[in-house]
Amino acid sequence: MAMRTNPVRGTRDFGPKQMELREYLMDKITASYKKRGFTKIQTPVIENIDLLLGSEGGENLQMIFKIMKRGEKLKLDKEGLSELDLADMGLRYDLTLPLSRFYANSKADLPTPFKAIQMGEVFRAERPQKGRFRSFVQCDIDIIGDETSAAEMELLDTTAKTLYDLDFKDFTICINDRRILSGIIEFSGFSTDDINSVCITLDKLDKVGKGGVKEELEKKGYDVAAVVKLMDVLAQMEEATILELEKFDIDKKVLEDLNEVVETVTTLSDGKYKVEFDPSLVRGMGYYTGMIFEAKYGSFGSSIAGGGRYDKMIGKLTNEDVPAVGFSIGFERIITILEEEGFEIPKAEQKIAFLYNPEEDKMVDVIKAANQFRDEGKTVNIVVKAKKFGKQLKRLEAQGFDSFCVYGDELEIKEM
Amino acid sequence: MAMRTNPVRGTRDFGPKQMELREYLMDKITASYKKRGFTKIQTPVIENIDLLLGSEGGENLQMIFKIMKRGEKLKLDKEGLSELDLADMGLRYDLTLPLSRFYANSKADLPTPFKAIQMGEVFRAERPQKGRFRSFVQCDIDIIGDETSAAEMELLDTTAKTLYDLDFKDFTICINDRRILSGIIEFSGFSTDDINSVCITLDKLDKVGKGGVKEELEKKGYDVAAVVKLMDVLAQMEEATILELEKFDIDKKVLEDLNEVVETVTTLSDGKYKVEFDPSLVRGMGYYTGMIFEAKYGSFGSSIAGGGRYDKMIGKLTNEDVPAVGFSIGFERIITILEEEGFEIPKAEQKIAFLYNPEEDKMVDVIKAANQFRDEGKTVNIVVKAKKFGKQLKRLEAQGFDSFCVYGDELEIKEM
Repeated sequence: MAMRTNPVRGTRDFGPKQMELREYLMDKITASYKKRGFTKIQTPVIENIDLLLGSEGGENLQMIFKIMKRGEKLKLDKEGLSELDLADMGLRYDLTLPLSRFYANSKADLPTPFKAIQMGEVFRAERPQKGRFRSFVQCDIDIIGDETSAAEMELLDTTAKTLYDLDFKDFTICINDRRILSGIIEFSGFSTDDINSVCITLDKLDKVGKGGVKEELEKKGYDVAAVVKLMDVLAQMEEATILELEKFDIDKKVLEDLNEVVETVTTLSDGKYKVEFDPSLVRGMGYYTGMIFEAKYGSFGSSIAGGGRYDKMIGKLTNEDVPAVGFSIGFERIITILEEEGFEIPKAEQKIAFLYNPEEDKMVDVIKAANQFRDEGKTVNIVVKAKKFGKQLKRLEAQGFDSFCVYGDELEIKEM
Repeated sequence: MAMRTNPVRGTRDFGPKQMELREYLMDKITASYKKRGFTKIQTPVIENIDLLLGSEGGENLQMIFKIMKRGEKLKLDKEGLSELDLADMGLRYDLTLPLSRFYANSKADLPTPFKAIQMGEVFRAERPQKGRFRSFVQCDIDIIGDETSAAEMELLDTTAKTLYDLDFKDFTICINDRRILSGIIEFSGFSTDDINSVCITLDKLDKVGKGGVKEELEKKGYDVAAVVKLMDVLAQMEEATILELEKFDIDKKVLEDLNEVVETVTTLSDGKYKVEFDPSLVRGMGYYTGMIFEAKYGSFGSSIAGGGRYDKMIGKLTNEDVPAVGFSIGFERIITILEEEGFEIPKAEQKIAFLYNPEEDKMVDVIKAANQFRDEGKTVNIVVKAKKFGKQLKRLEAQGFDSFCVYGDELEIKEM
């Protein structure tokens, strides 16, 4: 019986052409990060289930692929069997949690601050839909062990320059601070416990506008006076400079740091891309403790990179807080955009189709001749010469070969 | 409570230094393969459980990490619950099965023959022990759609040249053919059904010697005459040339092909490494149908690469056989050997530690100055200047920085 041969639902195979683009971009991103002093690490795609489920991954925790216990550890005859009786590991849903675990485990061998690059697959059991995958690549950089905003400046400058060098021009780096968000919410009269829920509503400002936000907050049953005051504060914020936000009881040091980061990254941008304070930027993850940022692309402002400071995550693992901040490029998002915009990889080496006739030529001689070109650094693919030679050349050109050579006395390389 | 922060049992984290070596080797292997006309593909690490369990993976099927069904599909209250009621996917245990699935699914978009590179993680729930991991990288090349031995010659030459360029000198390419193995077993009087079991014993020849093999075959209860005859045939084979094996009723075409492959690969080796016919080479996987090969390294003959022809695997998925042959470098094995032998990555770019004093220097100026060097392609890591400057320089040198620059008027790069 023939079997289904498509990849697992929500995942993708990548053929030669797609892989060429993916690897080109990954190499470019890596080179850009490395040039700025970041170094690569790699952790396994599988993690212990306790670590995953004990993390602050928000709704990602509902989407963990769980791996079943094996052998004697798998007891199926237990009464009142629960999912967690059966699973001891899971696939990682992001790269930040594994990085924190890695850092906690390897701190003694790492420099301070530690500047990490991670590029790897993460997995989420989402309902598959267009543009959403169950397995996708994330490209993260993180600085661990630096509590100053110098870390934010480096991350923001590095990510912005990397995106710019990938042919993204029309993007904006948006910056906010979680402590400003929670500050204005408390200032407006909400309780500390309400901050998360109010933030979730504020996150929709882009989509539903101020009217929509007000309506949702009222529906959630919050004190009307608090809702009105918050809307007023938001309106005032549009006119205010960062430093003026002190009037909403925001810590002066928080504002000065944010102001310096925005000014620095703006100066370093050299006018090539926009940098702005965005008081409505919320970002989903529960673990952020300080500045948060996003790169928004094009007129729809779709997010192509996001990150922030998470000073408490490593402490959850070790009982000792270590400051940390990260910025992640949405790799699948930028690939989709570049493909839609018809991006082409700059040509590098010559690719030669090396044709021979198996009835006349001895394979040992053919490989020997091809190896001479390969030794010069050329890419040479040995191919059986077809009877319809013209058609074959067209096919080879479509496959990406720019020149060909027919095995024989001359060994002349000709352009397609 | 502090959590366990080590990676999942049997897996590893790779820090910056290890990753540098791993990436250097992967890049070198990839470049060597690409130069010879192979192209990269990538499939997901998760596959449908039916595909995995329906494959001829031998003992690997016992070691599959299974992924639990999710949501409504997970029914824990079923009576007589079995493992397979609960799992719908698994982690791949090799790259050959996913390649076959990919090829069957994407054939229409691929050239014939198709020359694939795969480099990726595979997973086996082995009992963890020294040198054995539950997650490890395989580097495979495969040629699909070429039934001639030209494919074997290209694979063998490519793999041998790649190993040689990785600084492996003292290795031997060993070649055999499954049809010779089954031929001499049947010629000796065993039945066709016994071939696999006899092969498993023959595979131990290296370890237990002829006496041990004879003993085990007798213990398995085989006809004494057949065992004696097989031992005699093996003795005769040591003296015989490949073509002379026809006297054991081996198909002449099989012998001629094997002979040409051994001769061709020997000629192409240019005396840099050994190439030989090894009649005792068995290799474990059940799916091989023709030539099989291994690269053995050093005086202990440990296997650093292995592969063979598997003409029936794709047909199992599509009901239409497609010839295929592959060779896989044992990536973790070669890393272990290179590390033991003190292999060092050749130095490429300059790595500069860029020191500044946060109390005097403005971060925006520091990054701007560092970026000038980065724009020239140099790797520059911005670091806070420590009070004990001499000690700091030593630490930075140990981290791999070959030069440094102190932010200020001159911006002079000095060697460590």
